[in-house]
Amino acid sequence: MSIGLGLIGTGFMGKAHALAYRAAGAVFGDLPQVRLALLCDTPRDKADAMARQFGFEAATDEWRELAASPDVDIVSITTPNALHKEMALAAIAAGKHVHCEKPMALTLEDAREMEAAARRSGVRTIIGYNYIHNPAFAHARRLIEEGVVGRPVHFRGIVDEDYQADPDLPWTWRAKRADAGLGALGDLGCHLVSMAVGLMGPVESLVADTQIIHQTRPLGDGSGRGTVENEDAASAILRFHGGAQGALSTSRSAWGRKNKLDFEVHGTKGMIAFSQERMNELQLYVNDGPRSQQGFRTILTGPEHPPYGAFCPAPGHQLGFGDLKTIEAASFLRAIAGDAPNHPDFTAALSFEAVIHAIDVSAREGRRVNL
Amino acid sequence: MSIGLGLIGTGFMGKAHALAYRAAGAVFGDLPQVRLALLCDTPRDKADAMARQFGFEAATDEWRELAASPDVDIVSITTPNALHKEMALAAIAAGKHVHCEKPMALTLEDAREMEAAARRSGVRTIIGYNYIHNPAFAHARRLIEEGVVGRPVHFRGIVDEDYQADPDLPWTWRAKRADAGLGALGDLGCHLVSMAVGLMGPVESLVADTQIIHQTRPLGDGSGRGTVENEDAASAILRFHGGAQGALSTSRSAWGRKNKLDFEVHGTKGMIAFSQERMNELQLYVNDGPRSQQGFRTILTGPEHPPYGAFCPAPGHQLGFGDLKTIEAASFLRAIAGDAPNHPDFTAALSFEAVIHAIDVSAREGRRVNL
Amino acid sequence: MSIGLGLIGTGFMGKAHALAYRAAGAVFGDLPQVRLALLCDTPRDKADAMARQFGFEAATDEWRELAASPDVDIVSITTPNALHKEMALAAIAAGKHVHCEKPMALTLEDAREMEAAARRSGVRTIIGYNYIHNPAFAHARRLIEEGVVGRPVHFRGIVDEDYQADPDLPWTWRAKRADAGLGALGDLGCHLVSMAVGLMGPVESLVADTQIIHQTRPLGDGSGRGTVENEDAASAILRFHGGAQGALSTSRSAWGRKNKLDFEVHGTKGMIAFSQERMNELQLYVNDGPRSQQGFRTILTGPEHPPYGAFCPAPGHQLGFGDLKTIEAASFLRAIAGDAPNHPDFTAALSFEAVIHAIDVSAREGRRVNL
Amino acid sequence: MSIGLGLIGTGFMGKAHALAYRAAGAVFGDLPQVRLALLCDTPRDKADAMARQFGFEAATDEWRELAASPDVDIVSITTPNALHKEMALAAIAAGKHVHCEKPMALTLEDAREMEAAARRSGVRTIIGYNYIHNPAFAHARRLIEEGVVGRPVHFRGIVDEDYQADPDLPWTWRAKRADAGLGALGDLGCHLVSMAVGLMGPVESLVADTQIIHQTRPLGDGSGRGTVENEDAASAILRFHGGAQGALSTSRSAWGRKNKLDFEVHGTKGMIAFSQERMNELQLYVNDGPRSQQGFRTILTGPEHPPYGAFCPAPGHQLGFGDLKTIEAASFLRAIAGDAPNHPDFTAALSFEAVIHAIDVSAREGRRVNL
Repeated sequence: MSIGLGLIGTGFMGKAHALAYRAAGAVFGDLPQVRLALLCDTPRDKADAMARQFGFEAATDEWRELAASPDVDIVSITTPNALHKEMALAAIAAGKHVHCEKPMALTLEDAREMEAAARRSGVRTIIGYNYIHNPAFAHARRLIEEGVVGRPVHFRGIVDEDYQADPDLPWTWRAKRADAGLGALGDLGCHLVSMAVGLMGPVESLVADTQIIHQTRPLGDGSGRGTVENEDAASAILRFHGGAQGALSTSRSAWGRKNKLDFEVHGTKGMIAFSQERMNELQLYVNDGPRSQQGFRTILTGPEHPPYGAFCPAPGHQLGFGDLKTIEAASFLRAIAGDAPNHPDFTAALSFEAVIHAIDVSAREGRRVNL
Repeated sequence: MSIGLGLIGTGFMGKAHALAYRAAGAVFGDLPQVRLALLCDTPRDKADAMARQFGFEAATDEWRELAASPDVDIVSITTPNALHKEMALAAIAAGKHVHCEKPMALTLEDAREMEAAARRSGVRTIIGYNYIHNPAFAHARRLIEEGVVGRPVHFRGIVDEDYQADPDLPWTWRAKRADAGLGALGDLGCHLVSMAVGLMGPVESLVADTQIIHQTRPLGDGSGRGTVENEDAASAILRFHGGAQGALSTSRSAWGRKNKLDFEVHGTKGMIAFSQERMNELQLYVNDGPRSQQGFRTILTGPEHPPYGAFCPAPGHQLGFGDLKTIEAASFLRAIAGDAPNHPDFTAALSFEAVIHAIDVSAREGRRVNL
Repeated sequence: MSIGLGLIGTGFMGKAHALAYRAAGAVFGDLPQVRLALLCDTPRDKADAMARQFGFEAATDEWRELAASPDVDIVSITTPNALHKEMALAAIAAGKHVHCEKPMALTLEDAREMEAAARRSGVRTIIGYNYIHNPAFAHARRLIEEGVVGRPVHFRGIVDEDYQADPDLPWTWRAKRADAGLGALGDLGCHLVSMAVGLMGPVESLVADTQIIHQTRPLGDGSGRGTVENEDAASAILRFHGGAQGALSTSRSAWGRKNKLDFEVHGTKGMIAFSQERMNELQLYVNDGPRSQQGFRTILTGPEHPPYGAFCPAPGHQLGFGDLKTIEAASFLRAIAGDAPNHPDFTAALSFEAVIHAIDVSAREGRRVNL
Repeated sequence: MSIGLGLIGTGFMGKAHALAYRAAGAVFGDLPQVRLALLCDTPRDKADAMARQFGFEAATDEWRELAASPDVDIVSITTPNALHKEMALAAIAAGKHVHCEKPMALTLEDAREMEAAARRSGVRTIIGYNYIHNPAFAHARRLIEEGVVGRPVHFRGIVDEDYQADPDLPWTWRAKRADAGLGALGDLGCHLVSMAVGLMGPVESLVADTQIIHQTRPLGDGSGRGTVENEDAASAILRFHGGAQGALSTSRSAWGRKNKLDFEVHGTKGMIAFSQERMNELQLYVNDGPRSQQGFRTILTGPEHPPYGAFCPAPGHQLGFGDLKTIEAASFLRAIAGDAPNHPDFTAALSFEAVIHAIDVSAREGRRVNL
């Protein structure tokens, strides 16, 4: 069996998907064969050039052609968020499996529509919540499941970057809700939610607030200043279904933070802490052994933390961001081949994205929002 | 001029006050003379023994005697929180300056009564918010004032310890609101608020939630389990008067955290971050110079960060917790001698403590609370 | 032009080479086409299986066949060190470019023979000193070249792992000098030397000592204990040609260290420090600006640090160990295509390995050794 | 019993001694009474002023008077190193206990003379190796004694500061061997040796090298440049009597290092690591429990690590540099009162300082030096 990949987009995430699907089979010995069948970008000569670089068999500048192509089994969607819905619905309609970048869509309604379509169709879907594929994250989950830190009772999370920290950056369509949807919550916050839910279970309700730090930005043509319509920062206080509580914050205007995506799980016997900027480390404290020897341990990921060993048999040698994407692609290929769940599928991802929209609603309406 | 110190209590904070007032004059060359005049504890022989150890001239087991003693100019109150109010009011009534540990009182009403009495009387007061006397904290304030990180727009804070993390710890009076007041907010959260307000200015309003992680605890006499009435953890999302926003969280049940009291100030040009468990370090990021050389700097406090140099002329040699208390005592002595503000006095401290009570109200009533 | 890769070995480094050459062309847009032509391992069915997994066109269990194959332009040698020499000489004799793992050979004499053969032949060569391909390392070099830390005057380095820390590990051929050559120096120390020389220039002379921590190890067949003949740990104090001095240490028996490969460059204006276990960070201190704001900066690598951007346009997203190998492969492909130096070629690598053998001589003979 | 302290010097270390002896009795409940009897400095009015500030009963500008005074039981010597010998010999001759700062003297011969005099006299002596009084250090020793990390087999140490890093600093007498003795080794290196010996036992032999980074410095009067005669940096490779080996390095010209005094003890079951710039933390790795949960633990010192609890009953609240001096003073008072060893006395300190002089000899003579 050979699976044909059709990839739409060649930017940050497009390249990440291309590299991941190129690498996955060689890293893991158990995957079905993948063909890099068709690459779509515009203009056409760019699509051709990138297809050559990435090793795709063919190129197109018509995404609908890609979605309909008999050579394509998986449609990978890495275009701007506003385009996800239409592309995903077309791919699903054509019976293709869909690998779509997050967030699913600009609005919760659109995401729901996508989820319903996927559920009805029976195709396999996955949303690019790459950070939950980190062996360190999988280990955190395992530690919780095995009771190493006891019952998880409290969660803390932060996800910050600084790509909108500079007040002098020009206004772009990303500041417009109609074109970009949410701000920091859609770009960053949803990643943190994917981790929170993965560790603590589903969110029951929340109170929240959001902040537009830079209310206006200079228009690129020098004609004045444009209004920023979506949040630069947001915070929420969560209640989980299981009884735990927690807090999370995000900012896209946090100077010096490049990919700060940190969480803490407070358990009744210990604590787990993680920071994406040191993605090969997991912090673990367990109330065990002599008190005088207790402390947070810095666990360096290694072969003891699958699937790290598929990349490197030596511990502490470090995986990178691209490797997370390779794990994601591999897991999707396994799901398609039939022997594993595809996580997070549109249904799971919808549950993550419902949280960021609930944060937005809570902030705008000044009330607790139930999920 | 010689100032007589009367100290009530010889526990954690009592000893800290005794050591601080012993050291202050020798550390700083500009202070009025202090006499360790009178020490109060019960029973009397304990008071005598500790007076000998701490170097006090006399001892008593009657705090009212201390508050009234003509040998005493400052009354230092380090007793359980429920006793602060009565002692402070008596000391103020006797015309004594008052150095009281935090929080001021069990309820906001009591704290207000103390503040009003102090304001009317004209005595000098200070509440033991020791962490804001850290040279690293003073430096953070200075960096903000000098515009090094631009306009402060966002705040984050955490204060966690693990003294109530163990589910098997017995129930004590500390779990009872009538005897202990608030939980983590009163023990820990108010310290963080003192820093937040010191850096960002006053809080305008907030939404919050609190959590009792361990709902009951075993009674010491084996007769069953007692109910925990005050919060193990709390989170709040703040709006500051100046337009900034922020979030803070606290837990007394956070395994592995011993004195985690962390903050971040997000500015329009940079960021400042601090962690009390590494209290001699300040993290600073400034968007300045070549992008390829930007990064968070770990500034080790030294003589460039007053009053570090009064303790040690060599940078990086580390102050300790006790030194913060010495700085606090010195600042109060300077205030009494007339040439400096006494910060935080009861009025300032009341503004901190109003925030933790607002968090409690917001959580209980499920609404935004204005301050 | 298409370059055929012949890879010998499918273990740790064999897989690393396969993944690197698969990825290189897709990551970098400027490389010649690579064909994964021929894979060699034994037994034959393993070679076949791994060729399928890695995407090679053909497989063999005869390395001489691979070295002679007209389909092969590059011979990649990732077999045990004792085999490097014979394979490299055969490949060179066949006019193939050679990509060989480090160390070059068991003895300095063998390495010299390899270097001489390569020099005479005109083929391109590269030795797998992968850590010097880290963008963070390249940035360290650039900072020195640009004078940001002034004149480099002192070097410190450590490279430690714990794969031989357990006293109960069985004796293997790796403990035998005739089969394995040097111990920690050959496995680890030479990596550190590659960095030291890259940053500080060539070594002039040194004094050193070595240590066999576990003098014997249990024989696997239970028949007693075998003697460990090569060093578990070594230290050397270096004088560089440029006048700087420095020290380095290595251990393969350092519990908890997984890939600790740390260096410091002390300059007259600042310092650079690096730790491989946090390979996406570079520490920089510059004596510049207000003293009160000075501190070590943690620079997170990003697009400002080429060729990071070829992997990911967002800073702080982390490269991994495999990415270093991809950069190495890409640089070799560029060299073969004619427009770049191939570093480190056999000549440069020989200069690194001369240092570890000098350390061994200094320790055994108790004298300063000149290089 | 009351012990009279005579303190010579009011600079960095003079103040540290004054504060330490003021605090010791109040911190620890088991000490003999101390009187701050007599303070010596020049000129006389400075002595008077500092005596007032520090709380001494009397002042003098004649150190011989202090050494002879019947009010004085302990002579504390904190003057420049060249004066230690004469003062210590006079104090010993007068039957006083001697608390002297490190290093003992400019030359090993002088230190030996001091040690012999102290040994013959029977007075108590202590040298100010303050860092070994850190509860974290005591804990490291205990972990080794209890076998937690197995047999210690290897040591690493670094002690760096940057007070001589700036090439433009003027020449001072500190650069002259006749006036200042050794350079970085005397200022810094001996502290590290005190830790190495405390953890690993006595040094048997070593090879070493030293470096004068800044060969000349501008004379303060603008008349040219003066020669730097003592080392800015040094490294040594040690063999310990017990069979372990190790390496240490020191520099006084290491930009950004303020009090970096780091060590690692490699054991057969684990590792201990420490960094003075984070003096309240101890790193511990033990090969124990599931491999997937192993990692270096950051142990925050607390009441479990005596005598931390005498300062503060709450863990993680941080001791400071001054507190180490208080522990040192307390230990000396206990020794004088008769119930404890005074460590390090002149004999122990001589064994530390023999090592730094051996490093100097090894570097100058190019040979292994036995101790």
